[in-house]
Amino acid sequence: MARIAIIGLGLIGGSLGLALMRLGRRDLEIIGFDTDPAANRAARDLQAVQETARSVGEAVQGAGLVVVAVPATAVEEVFQAIAPFLAHGAAVTDTASTKGQIMRWAQEHLPPGVSFVGGHPMAGKSDAGILHAEATLFQDCPYAVVPSANASDAAVTSVVSMAEGLGAKVTFIDAEEHDRIVGGISHLPLLLSVALFRLIRHSPGYPDLARLAGPAFRDLTRLASGDPHMSTGIAVTNRENMQQWLDRFILELHQIRALLEESPETLLEEFARMQFNRERFLSGADQERGLPLEVPDLEDHFVAALAGAGTVSRLQRFWRAQRERENRLAEDLSGEDRPARRRE
Amino acid sequence: MARIAIIGLGLIGGSLGLALMRLGRRDLEIIGFDTDPAANRAARDLQAVQETARSVGEAVQGAGLVVVAVPATAVEEVFQAIAPFLAHGAAVTDTASTKGQIMRWAQEHLPPGVSFVGGHPMAGKSDAGILHAEATLFQDCPYAVVPSANASDAAVTSVVSMAEGLGAKVTFIDAEEHDRIVGGISHLPLLLSVALFRLIRHSPGYPDLARLAGPAFRDLTRLASGDPHMSTGIAVTNRENMQQWLDRFILELHQIRALLEESPETLLEEFARMQFNRERFLSGADQERGLPLEVPDLEDHFVAALAGAGTVSRLQRFWRAQRERENRLAEDLSGEDRPARRRE
Repeated sequence: MARIAIIGLGLIGGSLGLALMRLGRRDLEIIGFDTDPAANRAARDLQAVQETARSVGEAVQGAGLVVVAVPATAVEEVFQAIAPFLAHGAAVTDTASTKGQIMRWAQEHLPPGVSFVGGHPMAGKSDAGILHAEATLFQDCPYAVVPSANASDAAVTSVVSMAEGLGAKVTFIDAEEHDRIVGGISHLPLLLSVALFRLIRHSPGYPDLARLAGPAFRDLTRLASGDPHMSTGIAVTNRENMQQWLDRFILELHQIRALLEESPETLLEEFARMQFNRERFLSGADQERGLPLEVPDLEDHFVAALAGAGTVSRLQRFWRAQRERENRLAEDLSGEDRPARRRE
Repeated sequence: MARIAIIGLGLIGGSLGLALMRLGRRDLEIIGFDTDPAANRAARDLQAVQETARSVGEAVQGAGLVVVAVPATAVEEVFQAIAPFLAHGAAVTDTASTKGQIMRWAQEHLPPGVSFVGGHPMAGKSDAGILHAEATLFQDCPYAVVPSANASDAAVTSVVSMAEGLGAKVTFIDAEEHDRIVGGISHLPLLLSVALFRLIRHSPGYPDLARLAGPAFRDLTRLASGDPHMSTGIAVTNRENMQQWLDRFILELHQIRALLEESPETLLEEFARMQFNRERFLSGADQERGLPLEVPDLEDHFVAALAGAGTVSRLQRFWRAQRERENRLAEDLSGEDRPARRRE
């Protein structure tokens, strides 16, 4: 009987438990623990775990795999709390959004004979807490796996098997590269969401802005509703990467600002290019290793077709032709006889 | 029998037709027209209109209300095309994302005796075209109504009735104020989406970034997949407001960058404050006229409760207490007897 202990029964820990329980494997024993009695109760009620432990030590004792699913700022405390109780040979993983600092804490606090394998499922939603947990939260989501230098092969296999059991797609990566990358594709979006909400909220006439705000504003500020503990954990453990990405983004905004001065033709081409490339990203082609990233012919063809070979819009020419036809029809209806022009 | 003509049968025109048709009013005749024969066919098949006209002139002849639902850059052409055929006393409205330039084109091209009432439903989604049209697209969405100086009361009533018939919430506003506001809550988000996608797409190692990109990146770049014609129309007709909002946003990012240097306590408080305020925005309280915007006591109470009165996290203190308890238990189990400490 293999025991998995989940420490921290929030959205991530709870969803992880639900997904593992749903596998229905009789050889797995899934034990949870949270410092919040209400979370423990909910985890039992929702059957996100088989049972909850009365203490963090009880939870991890005898566990072959321990999943630490708490905000990054709380991970060090949990490592210190579980260290005395971990079985020799146990695998420990986490779900925090940064990895460099977590790996250093694992090195510092976890006993020898225990293998730490960092983990980061790229999943989540704004609603925190186990009451929003879903067994399908990790389905098809990218899952970064970051083995520590001295992790055993068995421990790595154990964490990878769990991630694949959740339905996630595993990518091996080192901690520094992970933090640089998620700084751009996850933490920068968080900061942009917060900055956009903050700017509008503090603008003069905010109630009028709020009254007209539609789906664009609502969707782009979604991450500003995220769990503040999680956001703080991210900011504290990945500050430098976030600042570097912010600097790059500010330069990008200056480019966009300059682009707005360009002709409608140039603007249309650039918007079409981004649309084309984002659709390619959504298709999954960019994520496949070995596919050529640049397909200029295809992209140019698409942009040219859309933009009507350099004019703002085929639509505009269409309308112009339409208007000329209508004008001629109108002239006809008013009794004027211009057969020569109609044949032009 | 009142006739409504919808010129342009894309996502917006098509959804508008579906919603009006669904009202099932026998006294309404809904005629559509698009320069694309496929769109006309789809509009008939989907019953987004009762029938389609063979020309734009035929569509608007005898119509009491004409809805121009084309990208902003095409509006001028359409005004010129329909002008000769509009009935005296007809109301004309549009659905474009900017209003200043549209109002000037209406003034210039529409004949006297016709009332122009600008309109802007704050709805939409990434998928363009009538095949993605939905009758419920405008349900509960803000709908800006901008009457021209010489619009008749009847024309204003007609446009407002239509918007309310779609299920939208009407706000009267003047064109300049409209363009300033949507520059912030709609066009700035569009530019941020494009800039984020562009930055990541052009970053070294993009395939690795794409492989780990999860819902945060996908959601924040959603608007980069929008119709390029529509985005171009927005950029061309609202450039100055967009540039001003970009400048403000860059200043905001510099503030966020500085905030990252602050203590975890300060970060947590700021993230909690934004979460609190965004939830308040989502609740609709900010949009009500007359409600006090600042409720400092409530906000401070929330932030203090969440942040544990100035410490990074109640969770951390909890874990610390937990660890101390475990350590004592461990000491007890190892046979040491320290009853005095246990009572502390």
